[in-house]
Amino acid sequence: MSAAHRIVVVGSVVLDTIHTPHGSAEECVGGSASYAALAASYHAPVHLVGIVGSDFPTEARELYAAHGIDVEGLEVVEGETFRWGGRYHADMNRRDTLFTHLNVFEHFHPKLPESYRDAEVVFLANIHPSLQMEVLDQVRNPRFVALDTMNLWIDIARDDLAAVLQKVDLLFLNDEEARQLSGETNLVAAVRALRAMGPKAVVVKKGEHGAVLFGHASTPYVQSTVLLDQVVDPTGAGDAFAGGFLGHVARVGNTEDVTLRAAMVHGTVLASYTTERFGIDRLAEIRESDISERSDVLRMLTAWPGH
Amino acid sequence: MSAAHRIVVVGSVVLDTIHTPHGSAEECVGGSASYAALAASYHAPVHLVGIVGSDFPTEARELYAAHGIDVEGLEVVEGETFRWGGRYHADMNRRDTLFTHLNVFEHFHPKLPESYRDAEVVFLANIHPSLQMEVLDQVRNPRFVALDTMNLWIDIARDDLAAVLQKVDLLFLNDEEARQLSGETNLVAAVRALRAMGPKAVVVKKGEHGAVLFGHASTPYVQSTVLLDQVVDPTGAGDAFAGGFLGHVARVGNTEDVTLRAAMVHGTVLASYTTERFGIDRLAEIRESDISERSDVLRMLTAWPGH
Repeated sequence: MSAAHRIVVVGSVVLDTIHTPHGSAEECVGGSASYAALAASYHAPVHLVGIVGSDFPTEARELYAAHGIDVEGLEVVEGETFRWGGRYHADMNRRDTLFTHLNVFEHFHPKLPESYRDAEVVFLANIHPSLQMEVLDQVRNPRFVALDTMNLWIDIARDDLAAVLQKVDLLFLNDEEARQLSGETNLVAAVRALRAMGPKAVVVKKGEHGAVLFGHASTPYVQSTVLLDQVVDPTGAGDAFAGGFLGHVARVGNTEDVTLRAAMVHGTVLASYTTERFGIDRLAEIRESDISERSDVLRMLTAWPGH
Repeated sequence: MSAAHRIVVVGSVVLDTIHTPHGSAEECVGGSASYAALAASYHAPVHLVGIVGSDFPTEARELYAAHGIDVEGLEVVEGETFRWGGRYHADMNRRDTLFTHLNVFEHFHPKLPESYRDAEVVFLANIHPSLQMEVLDQVRNPRFVALDTMNLWIDIARDDLAAVLQKVDLLFLNDEEARQLSGETNLVAAVRALRAMGPKAVVVKKGEHGAVLFGHASTPYVQSTVLLDQVVDPTGAGDAFAGGFLGHVARVGNTEDVTLRAAMVHGTVLASYTTERFGIDRLAEIRESDISERSDVLRMLTAWPGH
């Protein structure tokens, strides 16, 4: 790979209604593809693939465009956009889903515009694994394919997930999902089993506890989160993490271990900003200097003390 | 403080019966004081304070002595030693207590031999806070006092705990306990509240997710655990962490932030060895080279990649 690669992001675009201990927000733009695409846009050219209804706000479309995100692949059909509602507990690691209205998303089949099909990096954000496979059937020769998934697909679409995993270079999932999909309780053993399913690299996301990269090197890489004194809304943090990670990979243009490790930093930085306000509000407005400032915070938080 | 300080460790000495997914062990020597004293002994001279019954195995006493641990303060009384039994779940972050027989521990009041009272470092391992206070009434002029506690004392002896916390330099507790004791769900806010209760420094232990030091510097320090591919028995890991941490502080002989940060590494190293076998078996036999080897593993796991 050489520098300045393009990244295709496929996932859900949703209008979220979110309640957290710090307040509520109605119908804010979200979904795995929104968070991932915005985060990636700080590092590389992004092509978005998704579906919305005729009620999708023009301002949101303009927001993507303002971030240089190509929305030719964001299909608009008659009807209502996917809507989701959730309420976080006082312990914000836990949330309850209040409603899920798939609406136009129910019959979504991703269609990649011709100009997308030669993208070097592909991110299959969290949607049904059979839709993720449909995307891979449309790209020509991607150099790096990453996939995110969730407990629901492990439960109800395990075979579809296993099929698409065979074609994936990197798998993102959280620690609970890693244990569920592998059947192993020990994390190292779980990742060994996951790699046997296809992906050469695995990133285990652990929410407020950070993330672990099992990359090409023999030693994994452990990344702390930033310790924020207020998390307003954790929604989309995992998607922004993946977007920031893959944006960095696309920008650098290779998948060497040192690149993947630095990508862990960039994913963490973008995820941390995402949680500072509801929805995409904070993620959409950060600047280059914000990214380097928070990278420095992370570096100091974990600076090896010697012994 | 100058080099080579002595450390007094006060806590429980227990015969544990432990069941984990990897097997079982009957009546192995444990308790907060055993784990902490053995871990600290790799770095500094340790004086142990505790109580056992007449049934306490001679070999265990000899094991302490072989580690240079002064056991003059380990009181032996007629009757049976404290016994505890527990069973870990497949998810070893969870365990059920099967039985707790306090036996001779029920009427324990720590008595510090004269030679202990000038020790520079004091570790009040996890016992009732009123007993921890009795220890502080007997030491003359400690330079550094650290305390560990648990959810039980926060529930049933909060006032006693608050009183002793006012006399403590450093508090060890896990993330759940930090939230419970402070009433704050955000970790940074929780630690701010805990510091207002007395301790200038707080170490939040997060089990397999590592630990965070809120020390004197404005930036906290986040320490990852070693990623072991098999944890045989997590019992005592938190106590060994505290012992290794404080042993390092005693050895270096100061409490500067860089010392506390390096202590996080040493605590993590000793805790990780502890979990490799049942009880104190592995902790009791490690060598200097094991410690430096595992420190190197930790350093590589978290080596900042640049960006």
